[in-house]
Order: sequence, then structure tokens, then C-alpha cells
Amino acid sequence: MLNAAGPSGRVSRSSFIAEARAICGEAFVQEGAAIEPRFLQPARYAAGQAAALVRPGSRDEAARVIALAAAAGLRVVLQGAHTGLVRAGTPDDAQGEVLLSTERLREVFELDLLDRTLRVSAGFRLSEINERLAPHGLWFPVDLSADPSIGGMVAHNTGGTRMLRYGDVRANTLALEVVLAEPAGQVLRLGQGLQKDNSALALGQLFIGSSGSLGLVSEVTIKLAPLPRQRAVTLVAPAALEHVFPLYADVMQRWGGLVSAFEGISRAALEAGLHGQDVARWFDGQLPDYAMLIELSSELPGDQLDLGGLLQGWLEAEFESGRVRDAVLDADEAIWGLRHRISEGLRAQGKVIGLDLSLPRRHFMAFRERGAAWLAQRFPQLRLADFGHLGDGGMHFNMVWPASAGAWTGEQELTLREGLYALVAELGGSISAEHGVGPQLQAAYRAHWAMVEPGVLAWAMAVQKLWDPHARMGKVDWGG
Amino acid sequence: MLNAAGPSGRVSRSSFIAEARAICGEAFVQEGAAIEPRFLQPARYAAGQAAALVRPGSRDEAARVIALAAAAGLRVVLQGAHTGLVRAGTPDDAQGEVLLSTERLREVFELDLLDRTLRVSAGFRLSEINERLAPHGLWFPVDLSADPSIGGMVAHNTGGTRMLRYGDVRANTLALEVVLAEPAGQVLRLGQGLQKDNSALALGQLFIGSSGSLGLVSEVTIKLAPLPRQRAVTLVAPAALEHVFPLYADVMQRWGGLVSAFEGISRAALEAGLHGQDVARWFDGQLPDYAMLIELSSELPGDQLDLGGLLQGWLEAEFESGRVRDAVLDADEAIWGLRHRISEGLRAQGKVIGLDLSLPRRHFMAFRERGAAWLAQRFPQLRLADFGHLGDGGMHFNMVWPASAGAWTGEQELTLREGLYALVAELGGSISAEHGVGPQLQAAYRAHWAMVEPGVLAWAMAVQKLWDPHARMGKVDWGG
Repeated sequence: MLNAAGPSGRVSRSSFIAEARAICGEAFVQEGAAIEPRFLQPARYAAGQAAALVRPGSRDEAARVIALAAAAGLRVVLQGAHTGLVRAGTPDDAQGEVLLSTERLREVFELDLLDRTLRVSAGFRLSEINERLAPHGLWFPVDLSADPSIGGMVAHNTGGTRMLRYGDVRANTLALEVVLAEPAGQVLRLGQGLQKDNSALALGQLFIGSSGSLGLVSEVTIKLAPLPRQRAVTLVAPAALEHVFPLYADVMQRWGGLVSAFEGISRAALEAGLHGQDVARWFDGQLPDYAMLIELSSELPGDQLDLGGLLQGWLEAEFESGRVRDAVLDADEAIWGLRHRISEGLRAQGKVIGLDLSLPRRHFMAFRERGAAWLAQRFPQLRLADFGHLGDGGMHFNMVWPASAGAWTGEQELTLREGLYALVAELGGSISAEHGVGPQLQAAYRAHWAMVEPGVLAWAMAVQKLWDPHARMGKVDWGG
Repeated sequence: MLNAAGPSGRVSRSSFIAEARAICGEAFVQEGAAIEPRFLQPARYAAGQAAALVRPGSRDEAARVIALAAAAGLRVVLQGAHTGLVRAGTPDDAQGEVLLSTERLREVFELDLLDRTLRVSAGFRLSEINERLAPHGLWFPVDLSADPSIGGMVAHNTGGTRMLRYGDVRANTLALEVVLAEPAGQVLRLGQGLQKDNSALALGQLFIGSSGSLGLVSEVTIKLAPLPRQRAVTLVAPAALEHVFPLYADVMQRWGGLVSAFEGISRAALEAGLHGQDVARWFDGQLPDYAMLIELSSELPGDQLDLGGLLQGWLEAEFESGRVRDAVLDADEAIWGLRHRISEGLRAQGKVIGLDLSLPRRHFMAFRERGAAWLAQRFPQLRLADFGHLGDGGMHFNMVWPASAGAWTGEQELTLREGLYALVAELGGSISAEHGVGPQLQAAYRAHWAMVEPGVLAWAMAVQKLWDPHARMGKVDWGG
């Protein structure tokens, strides 16, 4: 479906560049070979190519470019901050694809302090949004290691480390403005930014997590949260793996809305995160096979509620009960530092193959065990270093292929993904917990739903054809 | 569009009854005049009529009935517990409509304590779900005065009094099973019930809040929350109306995730709720023009966090500051009792006309003022008694037409709704905050979106035609 390029109309492909420059300005349209590498090199996987890079400076310019590309029979690939991990924002066709970057879409930044909402253009990055909100005691609580654009976050419905308390992007999005693929350039506002509204079909929900396939998300209205006044973090070594989920259930029942993170970290991932740090004192230098990072947070100050004291009291009781072997407390920054350095630490060890999974909690440990056994048999040189958002069932099932093992081939990658994704499907899990779907996952997407619920593919194709009948936008074929 | 009944096929309308009885059993198919009144009389507005009432006892029976109705050229109207307030579950055509009640869809009740999720058939009622969850210390936190079926709650995306903390039904729904209108009777599972999953287009989101128009929601997987271990409630009289939203902003910034309800209640609504109760001691018998019901709740027990003490300390400071005139504390049940008796109290005064609105908070008070002024001019005999979920911008703009004023005519109702809904649109509000859309709101829906964003009507129609091309299901025309 994606190869059925739109019909060419009044604009020749050669005059597309000239017309795009007339719309956006000379400086913001680059032709094929002149495109800056950062727009073509994704965070993971190979670089791409495009007929042109266009960076519109406003919603209206973006709409005109989308209409122009349609008239020229060029497909449009949308790109935010290019931090995605499924290659959904990277073009691949120097003849037929225009890369539309949203980084200059910065017209709107309307903060409503009473509603605690922000209406914001797609191009703003998460870090800048939060810097601007901090003086008001607010933040957008979808917390990520990367620094994506808000438009990209909506297009991929990102989750992050504090989803347990705050929910994903979908749960924090109140309205969208989209520029459609068909009629090319039509602007549609979906929702009025209200907290509570059931006066229409939920069309905007389709665009959240659509990987830029149905239209350009040009502006969003998001919910903001008060900044917590305190956080308390602990890194816990359970006495045995079997205690992890009972401890999780206990923590949730005990503290519910105060639990803002519950991460799981395997020993190999701990080692990667601790790489080069002086933490010999932690766990007396004996790293556990698995650790849990638990964070409580609250808007109340410490004199009204002692979060650190709650954690300490609980840990003491669990030492007694025998379910907890050891724990690190009062080292909040160092603990989060470890967590955020894992990916970097793994990259230092070799080629990283990362699978962004989620599983029902009852099958989470079974997947780890069976996945590791399968790897040991098929790819004994791969080193498993999984970690992730255990609290919401998310698991970054990451593996390192050491340089000493030679090249990691595409064929090996295919075998690996097929084997592990089949296990994911068998155990009722997701092949993309929070990274979304892109070309890198296209085959896996088709195979997964063909196994789990084939009707999803047929209906998703019908919905995609409704919004983009000429396959003019994005890099995903939702029909499989 | 809704009048374009599906093509009649192999089944004659007269043999529909016989075949439906063969599928569901004699006792569960009633013909026109024999239908029990409760299935035809909605909670508000006039009774309806249908060719037949069918109560399938399983998802498969429901699918077969939907296919059978399509073959007979009969439209299907879906009904849960028939507690809706927009008449979306009430049939109106004794020739062409079959009423399908979901109350016997009770096959599945699968509680997953580790995931804190419940997979449940559409027919279970909210009260029964929560009764079964209570022994596990869990609840489904979409808290309503009515007792709807879970399928109906999803179809209308209900909000309720504790949405501020827990979100609406959408935010608490992880997966759906639907039986489609076309191909009639196709069963489609949308989502696997995972907390975190971005591996497909969000098709299931379309069905949430679709008022039973795109297909039958036969089963849902919902998120559960731990039952709070304590709650503290106060009813606050602000010194002046202008302090209401500053006090709201202060409360949210101060306590954030602990705030589980923030309701606003006008004096007339207070009087209705207090009807017949001995609360002369409250506010020294001087009811304020407007009151705020504020509830804090927490999973922590009182010895770890003193919610009542927090409220009391805050109130004392606000007495000092002069923003609060008086407050009732330590009367949690009586305060909620008042809140829940308002509707009943208003009905005792005459005919109630209820508008389920939401507004941006910055325009909330302006709407009250301008709406009241408009009413005073156009309908001086109407008594305004608004109340609602101020914390999320929701407002039940309810009015009473006293019996002494004679009959309330359909023409008056039309004038009233046109006038007030135009003001809602002007101030960026919603004409249906949490009740959804049904025949009762069809004209208002069309007029609202024609003013606010006409493209919504065209695209909603296209989406409806995709899922139900022969207009076989539901009572709403999303094209307007």
C-alpha cells in the first residue's frame, strides 16, 4: 500500500523545491544531497534519504507544503526531534519522499493556569516545555530519557518511567490539531482542550500513537501536573526473584497513588548502569540478580508526609520477613543516574539489540526465563541485559552482541525477532510497549496481529485508507 | 442516514422472532406490545417502542442476533442498564428496531490481582463489580450516582465525581471486545488488556463514547485502583464567588493526587439536597450562594497521614485570609448525602431540565452569570439550580420548571437549549461533558460542531459509515 504513491497533479516534482521555498523561505528547504545528516540519521538503525527536507515555520506553511507535495505526487514523512526508535520519522526514498520536520512549528505556547493545560505547537521539545512550566510549579509528567518533540510524543503515545502514576501521553492529551493527508493540507481541530467532553466521536484518539501515518499533529493541548514537593527512591535487592511481584503488589496496595516509578533491572543492566561509578559500597559490592527501583512522590512537603520514612519502615519489615535481602536508600540521584546510564553502558559493550515489550505481570518472569533460555540456545554469544518499567509490565528486553563475535547480520536479527516475538504473542504481550510502530517493526507488527487477532489488520487498513486514501503520509502500513 | 435501514435478506421480519427465540430461548425474546416497560422507559424523557426485545445470554448469542437482525433488515438499538440520560438506549420504531439488552451478558469476570485488571462482560453493573472487588481492596474508581452496566459506561465514557483523581472511563479501559454492525456479528478484540501497548492503531478508542453506534461493546478489560484507606470531606462556603477558582488552584497545587473530588454547588441545589434534612446547624442556617465540596483520599492509613488535619489546617488559614466564610467538617456521609440527593430534591420541585456541560475553568463563572441572566430574561419562571464537578470543569446546569407555571413545551425546551448551547459554544465549552450523545442531543450536537468545527461532522460521518455502512446500529447520526 505504501508504494502506491499519490497521483501527480499540477506541480512537477522539479518545481516542488521552488514552490516549497516560496512558502517556507530559502533557508528551510534543502534538496536531497544537501540535507543535514541529523535529519536523515535516526537514533537507531541506518541513515535514510529524501527528495527534500522542508521545515515549515507555521501550521499554515506546513499545510501548504502537504498540499504541494500531494500535487507533486511526493509522499510526506513527518519528523519531530528525530529521537524515535522505530525509524518512523526517517525517509528512505530520494525520489518520492519529502521529509517534513516540525522543529520550527513553535507558534503556540498558551498556558492556562486555572485549567492546568498547555496548548502547544508540535515543535516544542519536552525539556523546553518543562523548563517553561517549572516556575509555575507544573510539569508534563510523561518522563523520558530522550528529549522528543511534543508532536512526536503524541504521534507515538510515549509512556516513560512515571507512567504508573501519571499515565501515558494519551491519558494526558485533551485536544489535537491535525493537518490531514486527504484532502491534503486540511486543518482539523479535534477537541476543545476540555478536561471532560463526550460530545463527539473520539477521532483525535486515532492520531495518538499513529506514528505520523494519518496526518500531521501540528498542535496539542495537554494536561499538566503539579510538581511533586518530595521524592524518595530506593533500589531494592529481593531475596529471590519469586518475591518481586508479591513485593510489587504490596507496594501498590500500600501506597497506590504515591508510587511514581517501579522499575526492574537485571544484574547485567545494573552493571552497565554502574559502569565507571564508585558504588562499591552498594549491596556490599555483591550485585543482586535483579533489583527494583521504587520511587514515591507527593505534592505534600516532608513535614506533612515522610516518604523516606515510609520506605525505610517498609524495608525494615521486609528484611525481617526475608523477602528483601538488601537496599540502597538516600541516594536518589545516584540511583536514577544508574537507571539512565544503562543504555549508554550497554552501547559501550557492543551492538545493542533492543526489544520494547510489555507483558501481563503474571507472565513477566516466565517470559524472562523462557526468552533467556531461547537466547542461550540460539545465540549463546548474545548477552541479555533487560530492564524496564516493571510497574506497568514494560520490559526493555535488550541484548548486547559483543564486537568479538563478529558482525551482527540482518538475518540473525530477523531470526531473533521472530523467535522472541512469537513468545511475546504466546504470553499475551505487546511487541511495542511505548516506542510505537515504524518500518523497523512493520514485519513484526503484521506477524503479531496475524497471530493474535487478524481482524485488527483489516480494520486498521480500512481506517488508514479513509484518512489517507492515496498513501501520501508516514512510513507505516497499518494493513500489515 | 439513520433512516436508511439495511437491506432485507434471507430472513423475513416475521420469522425474525422465531429465529431469535431459537438462538436465545423463548423467555428472552419479547414482541412489541409484550415488552416489559422498564426496557422502553428511559431515566429521562418519553418511553419508546420496538419490534422486539432480545436478551442474549452470551457474546455468541448476541453476535448471532445482530447478524439475524441485519438479514431481516431490522436496526439494532443497544441497551445496558438503561440508566443513560440522552436516550441513546431507547428504541423508537415498532417496525424497524430491535432492542438488544446486554443485561444477560455475564459470561466473563476475570480478575487479575497482579495486573489489577478485570476482564468483564458488558452486562455486569458497576455496583456488583465493586462489591466483588471490595474483598480484594480494589475498586473501579469511576464513581457515579447511577448504577449503569459496564458496557454502557464504556459506550458513554462516563466521568463521575472522582474523575479529578482517577480519570474517566477512557483512562481506565485497557481493551474491548466488540461485535460489529458490518460484517454483522463479526467479533473483534481490540487490545490485549495490557497497561502499556503501542503496537496498533487505537481502534478501540473509537468505541469508547460512541453511544452504541459503531458496534456492541460485549466485553471490556478495565484498570482497578486500590480502595482508599481514608477519606476526608469538607463543604466550604467561600466569602465571595471570586475566591472559588483561586481556592481550587490552591488546593490542587497543595495536594494534587490526593484530591479526589472538588464539586461546586449553587445555593438552590444545596437547598434541594438539604430538603427534609436536619442541618440547621450547618453554616448557622445561612446557606451560602455557592459551596465547594472538597474530598481528599489516600491509600495511607490515618496514623501515617492525617487528611482531616490537613483540611482543618487549611480551612483555618483560609478563615484568616478571609477567602473562606464557613465550612462543615467531620460530616463526610452527610455531605455526600446532600450531594447525591440534589437531583431527587429538584424533581420534587417540578419538571427538571438538565444540561450536562463543561467549560474551561476561566469561563466557568462567566457562563453561570450570563446563563442566569439569559434565563431571567427569557424564562423568568425557571429556577436555576446548578451543581457539578467543578474540579474538571463539569457543570450540571439544571433548572426547575414549577408545576404552577403550566406545561413545559417542546418548543420552550428547544429555545432554551439553543440559547444556552450557543453560549457554551461561544465560551469554548462542551454540550455533553459526561452523558454522551443520543437522540435527545442530536440537534444540539449538529449545531454545536457546525459552529465550532464543521470538519468534525464530516469526518465523524465517514468513520461511522466505515463501521456501519448500512446504518444498522445505534441511535446517533454522527454526521449530524
